[in-house]
Amino acid sequence: MTLHLRQATITDLPAIVALLADDVNGTQREDASLPLDPGYTAAFAAIAADPDQELIAAEQDGRIVGTLQLSFLPGLSFKGAWRGQIEAVRIAGDLRGQGLGGEMIRWAVERCRQRGCRMVQLTSKTNRADAHRFYEKLGWKKTHAGFKLQLTEDR
Amino acid sequence: MTLHLRQATITDLPAIVALLADDVNGTQREDASLPLDPGYTAAFAAIAADPDQELIAAEQDGRIVGTLQLSFLPGLSFKGAWRGQIEAVRIAGDLRGQGLGGEMIRWAVERCRQRGCRMVQLTSKTNRADAHRFYEKLGWKKTHAGFKLQLTEDR
Repeated sequence: MTLHLRQATITDLPAIVALLADDVNGTQREDASLPLDPGYTAAFAAIAADPDQELIAAEQDGRIVGTLQLSFLPGLSFKGAWRGQIEAVRIAGDLRGQGLGGEMIRWAVERCRQRGCRMVQLTSKTNRADAHRFYEKLGWKKTHAGFKLQLTEDR
Repeated sequence: MTLHLRQATITDLPAIVALLADDVNGTQREDASLPLDPGYTAAFAAIAADPDQELIAAEQDGRIVGTLQLSFLPGLSFKGAWRGQIEAVRIAGDLRGQGLGGEMIRWAVERCRQRGCRMVQLTSKTNRADAHRFYEKLGWKKTHAGFKLQLTEDR
């Protein structure tokens, strides 16, 4: 079965939110019930309206089996280089460990290259040693520490 | 002397590029000579044209003493939360260790809050233990590992 990667459409949104909710970090904070929380549709609209944001759907045999988000960021560093950023990578639970992740990341990197990015960056939870090995196998360098500051009280 | 933080203008650009070049990581890859490399002016234009990108100048007594870039990123996670991202934080070499960094980061976080972000994120080189302590003192959590993939051959 071939994995088909493409820009997500609004009709993909329920399946993509379900992938976000079906995740060790997502069960607490996401809600895939229908109709979708309006926060999701608003975010989808914001991404769709911005040419430097892309929500990607990975489709296999008519089913949405994976997702990721790409951001293309202008910046002054490296004499004004654009950088790509990958966020919110998710793969259906029953399909993990079959190489889909590698295919998705390679596709995302190629997309960043097409967009003229000089580098691509992402962060991965500190305790996900398997994910770290996965990225290092794909040639990524773990050179940075990632910091977060929550601005709301509930988490 | 008061630190004044504001959106950078094109006339600030040479001073900001000089701050990027005056950095242990920047000397190799930046060029602050005038006229500026057109990559810098193109990047400034891209940032200025995007309402979700802000290049910030920190001014003290008429001198540009610091800079950072803010990106406001839409995303589906956390029911469609916006996140702020801080990149390219630099402070003039002769003014480091005087609390300017803390003032700049607190200002940036407040700006993200105004923009409705639910969280703010940044990465810092793995070997910059002093910077890591600085962010942790400000309440940030080092929860992630940051990976980069270079897409060009020269670095």
